[in-house]
Amino acid sequence: MEEVDHLAQERSRAEFDVEAMKVVWAGSKHALDVADRMARVVASDPVFRKDNRTMLGRKELFKNTLRKAAHAWKRINELRLTEEEASMLRFFVDEPSYVDLHWGMFVPAIKGQGTDEQQQKWIPLVYKLQIIGCYAQTELGHGSNVQGLETTATFDPKTDEFVIHSPTLTSSKWWPGGLGKVSTHAVVYARLITEGKDYGIHGFIVQLRSLDDHSPLPGITIGDIGTKFGNGAYNTMDNGVLRFDHVRIPRDQMLMRVSQVTREGKFVQSDVPRQLLYGTMVYVRQTIVSDASKALSRAVCIAVRYSAIRRQFGSQDGGPETQVLDYKTQQSRLFPLLASAYAFRFVGEWLKWLYTDVTQRLQANDFSTLPEAHACTAGLKSVTTSATADAIEECRKLCGGHGYLCSSGLPELFAVYVPACTYEGDNVVLLLQVARFLMKTVSQLASGKQPVGTTAYFSKIQHLTQCKCDVTRADDWLNPSTIVEAFEARAVRLAVNCAQNISKASNPEDGFYELSADLLEAATAHCQLIIVSKFIEKVQQDIQGHGVREQLQILCNIYALFLLHKHLGDFLSTGCVTPKQGALANEQLRKLYSQLRPNAIALVDAFNYTDHYLGSVLGRYDGNVYPTLYEEAWKDPLNESVVPDGYHEYIRPLLKQKLKLSRL
Amino acid sequence: MEEVDHLAQERSRAEFDVEAMKVVWAGSKHALDVADRMARVVASDPVFRKDNRTMLGRKELFKNTLRKAAHAWKRINELRLTEEEASMLRFFVDEPSYVDLHWGMFVPAIKGQGTDEQQQKWIPLVYKLQIIGCYAQTELGHGSNVQGLETTATFDPKTDEFVIHSPTLTSSKWWPGGLGKVSTHAVVYARLITEGKDYGIHGFIVQLRSLDDHSPLPGITIGDIGTKFGNGAYNTMDNGVLRFDHVRIPRDQMLMRVSQVTREGKFVQSDVPRQLLYGTMVYVRQTIVSDASKALSRAVCIAVRYSAIRRQFGSQDGGPETQVLDYKTQQSRLFPLLASAYAFRFVGEWLKWLYTDVTQRLQANDFSTLPEAHACTAGLKSVTTSATADAIEECRKLCGGHGYLCSSGLPELFAVYVPACTYEGDNVVLLLQVARFLMKTVSQLASGKQPVGTTAYFSKIQHLTQCKCDVTRADDWLNPSTIVEAFEARAVRLAVNCAQNISKASNPEDGFYELSADLLEAATAHCQLIIVSKFIEKVQQDIQGHGVREQLQILCNIYALFLLHKHLGDFLSTGCVTPKQGALANEQLRKLYSQLRPNAIALVDAFNYTDHYLGSVLGRYDGNVYPTLYEEAWKDPLNESVVPDGYHEYIRPLLKQKLKLSRL
Ligand SMILES: Cc1cc2nc3c(=O)[nH]c(=O)nc-3n(C[C@H](O)[C@H](O)[C@H](O)COP(=O)(O)OP(=O)(O)OC[C@H]3O[C@@H](n4cnc5c(N)ncnc54)[C@H](O)[C@@H]3O)c2cc1C
Ligand SMILES: Cc1cc2nc3c(=O)[nH]c(=O)nc-3n(C[C@H](O)[C@H](O)[C@H](O)COP(=O)(O)OP(=O)(O)OC[C@H]3O[C@@H](n4cnc5c(N)ncnc54)[C@H](O)[C@@H]3O)c2cc1C
Ligand SMILES: [Ca+2]
Repeated sequence: MEEVDHLAQERSRAEFDVEAMKVVWAGSKHALDVADRMARVVASDPVFRKDNRTMLGRKELFKNTLRKAAHAWKRINELRLTEEEASMLRFFVDEPSYVDLHWGMFVPAIKGQGTDEQQQKWIPLVYKLQIIGCYAQTELGHGSNVQGLETTATFDPKTDEFVIHSPTLTSSKWWPGGLGKVSTHAVVYARLITEGKDYGIHGFIVQLRSLDDHSPLPGITIGDIGTKFGNGAYNTMDNGVLRFDHVRIPRDQMLMRVSQVTREGKFVQSDVPRQLLYGTMVYVRQTIVSDASKALSRAVCIAVRYSAIRRQFGSQDGGPETQVLDYKTQQSRLFPLLASAYAFRFVGEWLKWLYTDVTQRLQANDFSTLPEAHACTAGLKSVTTSATADAIEECRKLCGGHGYLCSSGLPELFAVYVPACTYEGDNVVLLLQVARFLMKTVSQLASGKQPVGTTAYFSKIQHLTQCKCDVTRADDWLNPSTIVEAFEARAVRLAVNCAQNISKASNPEDGFYELSADLLEAATAHCQLIIVSKFIEKVQQDIQGHGVREQLQILCNIYALFLLHKHLGDFLSTGCVTPKQGALANEQLRKLYSQLRPNAIALVDAFNYTDHYLGSVLGRYDGNVYPTLYEEAWKDPLNESVVPDGYHEYIRPLLKQKLKLSRL
Repeated sequence: MEEVDHLAQERSRAEFDVEAMKVVWAGSKHALDVADRMARVVASDPVFRKDNRTMLGRKELFKNTLRKAAHAWKRINELRLTEEEASMLRFFVDEPSYVDLHWGMFVPAIKGQGTDEQQQKWIPLVYKLQIIGCYAQTELGHGSNVQGLETTATFDPKTDEFVIHSPTLTSSKWWPGGLGKVSTHAVVYARLITEGKDYGIHGFIVQLRSLDDHSPLPGITIGDIGTKFGNGAYNTMDNGVLRFDHVRIPRDQMLMRVSQVTREGKFVQSDVPRQLLYGTMVYVRQTIVSDASKALSRAVCIAVRYSAIRRQFGSQDGGPETQVLDYKTQQSRLFPLLASAYAFRFVGEWLKWLYTDVTQRLQANDFSTLPEAHACTAGLKSVTTSATADAIEECRKLCGGHGYLCSSGLPELFAVYVPACTYEGDNVVLLLQVARFLMKTVSQLASGKQPVGTTAYFSKIQHLTQCKCDVTRADDWLNPSTIVEAFEARAVRLAVNCAQNISKASNPEDGFYELSADLLEAATAHCQLIIVSKFIEKVQQDIQGHGVREQLQILCNIYALFLLHKHLGDFLSTGCVTPKQGALANEQLRKLYSQLRPNAIALVDAFNYTDHYLGSVLGRYDGNVYPTLYEEAWKDPLNESVVPDGYHEYIRPLLKQKLKLSRL
């Protein structure tokens, strides 16, 4: 294949230091270095190839994933990688597997909910992979409503054991990743019953499979729940079903950090506050926001590069046609997504800080910011994952017909990404939690309670419900404080409107229920404000590198004004901006797109993704799209023979039959 | 399995005659009867089973499709089906295959572009399936820009033949369905070159494969372009790649209805007007709109039924939890989609009438309505397919985690549907055509030209740019003329704004290009107005059956007010409605959702879909969701063995290794 960089000219147009932007994107020089090294380790290792993934049948696909997971573990140990490096390496392997749940859910559950002794017992086994664990919460009948789970864990004082049981079909565990075929253990969430009383949902460590031959232990029925969305995608994961028929486990396998059952069967709460459990949730959701920026940036990278290669229409005097990236419609669909990728990256970085902050406060028994932090992470998880899922599909459409081929990488990226909108909290259920928190914040203002953290702007409620935006020219919209005030005013006014309408209902619960669609919009406005604010704060930090701040400034403004245009109804109906000001924002947006255009390729290069990680013929670094598309096609199993299997049975007889059709 | 109707109580709540609604949905008693019979023929025939489709590898999947296509042909002939019945039967087989292109593109191309003699020669072969044809237009390098195709058809007067040739890699035909493995013939679009001159793109009938052994003819390279989005889905289709190395065809295989090449190689235009070709486009796009309503109604049917079965939260005193269909957020996401399904159904019906009208006019040499009809079908294709693609994914999300399983039917429905946004015209490119037509309409108003058909409202431009909406109470929004006027005013004002902004540019082309993102919004507004208007007209027709009109009225209002809320920015910024009126519309919308709620199940029952066609465990007619989900899971290939293939190589060694980890 030729060794030409078809995007070289595009790259030469960049007005900023791409290497410096790589550091900003990665978070630090160190983070960039780790990511870069790990990405190369994976990309250069044939075991980790994934270009054939979408063509494999389920069993072959799954076995291949097992192979990769084992190989990754081997390499991690051979190379004596740090935890940071190991997790980066796993990230670049880019294939969902039991490993994710083992490290991402099983370990945090034991660390967060286990006593010190329990941690001392289990964590070494877990870290050495002498057992493999998963997180078995969801059941066939209950996902969002965790308190409604039906699996029971009944204490038997005679034997000092819990009896884990699935009393109904709908109590079957259903969905846990790694459960179906791999995990030897699980943290199982079940209703704790002791002394005839139901104490609600608690976590229990349950061994599922024999460590000798991997067969399910007595009383345990276990399997995979079947094929999921997309080729490859999440089908590399053994999401599982699990039923218990009176399975006994020792009492000390209940995770007892916050509540315990004594030898006699007494239920006791420890003095460790329950709120500690929320810390884990904040942690997990923060990683989901960070993953959103990765998935989104990946899709955007593919669509931007291909849009620079793809030419269609507009040839003058037989010259080359127009790059589709030059069409204003393409820009107005694509550049806000590029800006969103950066926005989500920075809000994710900030959430990491928030998690540290919350952890430190918890250790100092300060729970004051926890509800706000909890609402904030729930909301950001919801808003960023929903936007990312939509954006990946939009990027696919932006690639025209060729985006529909698996070799574009976009179909699989979409299919593997979308469940992020559902797991770790259904996005709508999460937004309703945010809305509940906002309504509480509003109602407590009256009693003088000061709103904290991301809701602090509610203390300016008097001003924000009355202020008028003072934009008179398009470039007034470049003023960060103008933007923030408009977003704050929108969020406050939507929240206050909801609160007022709720107060008209016969009782607040009915009102909340009745107005919940409006409440989603208010919650969304609040979350978008956070993202916009954190982006603005980022740009105001000390940023190194020629032209880097200027590009971030452009991206930040695009992100904010794009949202303003998209939700113009909110801004206008609450009187935050006038129609004229809305039109000026739109005008400014057009200018910003033109400013971004020459830097588009360099801005996606700054993600520093290898071709292996991107996994897209259309997004190749060198832009050599057409010959590669052509070559890839021939690898399809259907091309193994020129005349297809089935010709003699099902095509030839049709062609050869002599029909007398009355219809002719 | 138990024979209980878990939705019986829901069904008993319906306030209208479901059987009468089935007739309205189908279009007529006759249409319902045909659809019902054909759906049963397919559902009861084991050859047509499709529940295992998402688990098959590509080759097996494809062979199975060939088998179904052959079997369908056999049944069509055995049962002596009419053309209407045959096409319904094929529809319910519900699996993309070469048959679609043969009947849907190859036949119309020959009928539309072939001379009478050509039709006499080819149509009998085609109808008897003695040849199988496809439609080979798109190339690796050109899709949207048909005039840029590179394949050449050079006339050789010495032999009275055309030489079909692929001069570049990017000139390879790429995407045509049925091409990769099945078609014996294609209509190939190529640049006609004769007497050294390039006469642009024309269609040629080219034989691709031997009728004896199916091998590609000399000079022809042909294959499948590879795996596409999703499990099953469009992978049953052999979208193909095709290259010509100086392939010769007789001169009379150029489709010569509108232009001809004489024996001497002279290019001549016939007196048949070129516009005739547009008739076919109107036809094809009208079927796409009708298919949109089918795909959307199918997704909505699944989501509505499952939302009535699924209960989550809200149990009081240990009673059953709340059906998620009762949550206002669920309703506000789902009911507009149900309303859209009906809206698209009726606008599709109207387009069918439009096609007949255009055809009659063309026969009478009246081309006056053609540009408007063309713009209108292009726009409706774009708006309905984009909305449907988004809606299917939203329905999947509305089903929570279980929607992500292939057994829900929604992943495959999405994957198979989305290319409708791209083929037969990329949706953005089409909207730009509509916008161009609107700008022309506006500019011609000055010269007194009367706008026709769906643009007739532009003649009220004076009034529409000034009128004020007179809604003062929520239920004023139930007045059809209020709704229509608001939508007309929005569409006119957006178009006029664009026209004014364009006129400020140095030249109209630059202005159009610069403002194209705004033009998309104006074009969308125009198309949505058409859909709303046609729905209103439908409700005003003579409609049979108890309560049927009332339900349609509710759906129609939901559709209109949902759009108004979604695009509130447009309505407010152009001053069509005030913020207060916008809030009243939202209030009315909430009331409409409550009115719809008891009828929701019956309204999806009215689609009359068999469980076979729906192909969804979640959407089952009897609502017996959980036992079926559980049973389906075990059919996955991964469950063939309890201990997975790969355990000994890749799991056991991990568990058994003795590691000394410095990291612990
Ligand atoms: C790929 C994948 C991996 C997963 N991995 C795991 C795992 O490892 N371990 C595990 O335990 N689980 C796992 N899950 C399960 C996941 O956590 C649940 O699917 C998720 O919590 C959503 O719950 P649900 O499916 O019950 O949705 P439901 O709650 O049934 O949602 C259905 C609909 O009802 C709506 N709804 C529900 N409640 C309300 C309400 N109160 N108000 C308004 N609307 C409401 C929702 O918005 C949604 O539209 C996984 C799921 C997926 C898809
Ligand atoms: C499943 C499937 C089946 C198909 N079947 C057939 C078939 O049977 N026969 C056949 O001949 N073809 C077929 N096609 C090809 C299909 O017709 C083309 O993919 C389609 O016309 C879109 O063209 P494109 O792929 O070149 O998109 P492009 O034009 O390359 O689109 C890429 C991007 O550029 C944008 N863009 C392009 N031009 C402009 C412009 N002027 N202004 C603004 N933006 C622009 C688009 O909006 C899009 O975002 C099929 C495609 C698919 C996916
Ligand atoms: Ca808008």
